[in-house]
Amino acid sequence: MEEGMNMYPTHAEYRFTIVYRGELAPGYPESYLESNNLFMSEHTGTHLDAPAHFVPGAWRLDEIPLGHLTGPGVVVDVRDKIGNNSDYAITQQDLQDWERQYGRIPDDSILLLRTGWGEWFWEQGPQAFLGTDTEDVNLVHFPGLHPEGAQWLVDNRNVRMVGLDTMSPDTGEASAKAPLVHRILLPNNVLILENVAHLDKMPPTGSTVYAMPIKIGQGSGAPARVFAIVDGRTSTAGLSTPNWAAMLSTLLILAVM
Amino acid sequence: MEEGMNMYPTHAEYRFTIVYRGELAPGYPESYLESNNLFMSEHTGTHLDAPAHFVPGAWRLDEIPLGHLTGPGVVVDVRDKIGNNSDYAITQQDLQDWERQYGRIPDDSILLLRTGWGEWFWEQGPQAFLGTDTEDVNLVHFPGLHPEGAQWLVDNRNVRMVGLDTMSPDTGEASAKAPLVHRILLPNNVLILENVAHLDKMPPTGSTVYAMPIKIGQGSGAPARVFAIVDGRTSTAGLSTPNWAAMLSTLLILAVM
Repeated sequence: MEEGMNMYPTHAEYRFTIVYRGELAPGYPESYLESNNLFMSEHTGTHLDAPAHFVPGAWRLDEIPLGHLTGPGVVVDVRDKIGNNSDYAITQQDLQDWERQYGRIPDDSILLLRTGWGEWFWEQGPQAFLGTDTEDVNLVHFPGLHPEGAQWLVDNRNVRMVGLDTMSPDTGEASAKAPLVHRILLPNNVLILENVAHLDKMPPTGSTVYAMPIKIGQGSGAPARVFAIVDGRTSTAGLSTPNWAAMLSTLLILAVM
Repeated sequence: MEEGMNMYPTHAEYRFTIVYRGELAPGYPESYLESNNLFMSEHTGTHLDAPAHFVPGAWRLDEIPLGHLTGPGVVVDVRDKIGNNSDYAITQQDLQDWERQYGRIPDDSILLLRTGWGEWFWEQGPQAFLGTDTEDVNLVHFPGLHPEGAQWLVDNRNVRMVGLDTMSPDTGEASAKAPLVHRILLPNNVLILENVAHLDKMPPTGSTVYAMPIKIGQGSGAPARVFAIVDGRTSTAGLSTPNWAAMLSTLLILAVM
């Protein structure tokens, strides 16, 4: 998380303030101190949306059971289908195409959609990642999930979380008008993970993902550290018993662009 | 994390601000939105201290390798020795007493010290947890680690992190004057984890702890989600191969009092 990083225009800009950085007693290196303050929207950087973000009375961030924050990782690479179409919405068909190759999306999994947009998160200025240098939400464009794809997931599969390497599971275009994907997933307690990084390092299956937000009381969401344990010896179905030492040695970081 | 929670007096108070909570279009429940802003010190709630907090040029938060954030959990319950002595400093002898019972503290482990003070984190007012209702750091009292215990750890054992259920590994008394434990651990890249919760749910050995801070660029520390995977079938030495399904079913939350 750094000042100037991409934010959805309606959220506050992240601020990092140095409180102290230096020797408390000049000339005494053993008195050195660094300390900083943070100001942020809950919806900053790699972060989780809790159901209460869009649903009255639903789980707030601190009410989400811990077990709901981890599950088998499923990574759907849709870069070829999206190309450079910043309004592309990932369909039920795209998800079913993935299943034909890798098998049914497992129960309780964390579904990660790789659009390729994440590669531009740290580009100078928001043009590449958000489609505009302005603060006008009507000019925001990036790919996302199609509402029908989201509805198919909710009706036919049992995932705990949908994450992607963009600012939202709704396309940029939909985000400003009708964020239907949020309104389909969240009432079903399917959590949303935004701005996930390093999906290029993830296998399509055979990982366990941990998306761990800081526990903000009453939160509508929170910044999260996201990582995966990848077992090279696990079958694509992800069902074999992994080796503990091998898992730790292949620990991968996903979080925080 | 909640407004009013205990903070070390020199750090800023945590602030949670509601940006929006309600229907964007009154009368339309499908337009419901919750969103909040946060202001905090990096050293708030359950959080990690990076070496740069006290050591010029050492790892800042975003420079800590991911693998350094996880390891075998070692929980040393020192409540009987501490009693109600809020100036008690845990000694090398206390750590060695633990080793006589449970075996040598494993390499790369995360050492968690249970003082019992954590049970008072949410008491009304800071008197029970910090020893004073004032903002005067000279009146702060809570138990911690003795500098000689810290030096013994650094010289003779190879731990990745020292955590405890108090505000600091230095006693409250030492924190205001000479926080030597910080200045022994951090230059050796032994990370510090403060305000760890739910240590009562942890076994002395046989767990793997994950202490996952949000990735604050240039951070001297950061709030973290901390959890453990406990394998009931692992020997006290923590060396047997655990069962994956059993591990997930016994996932425990530690973080965030």
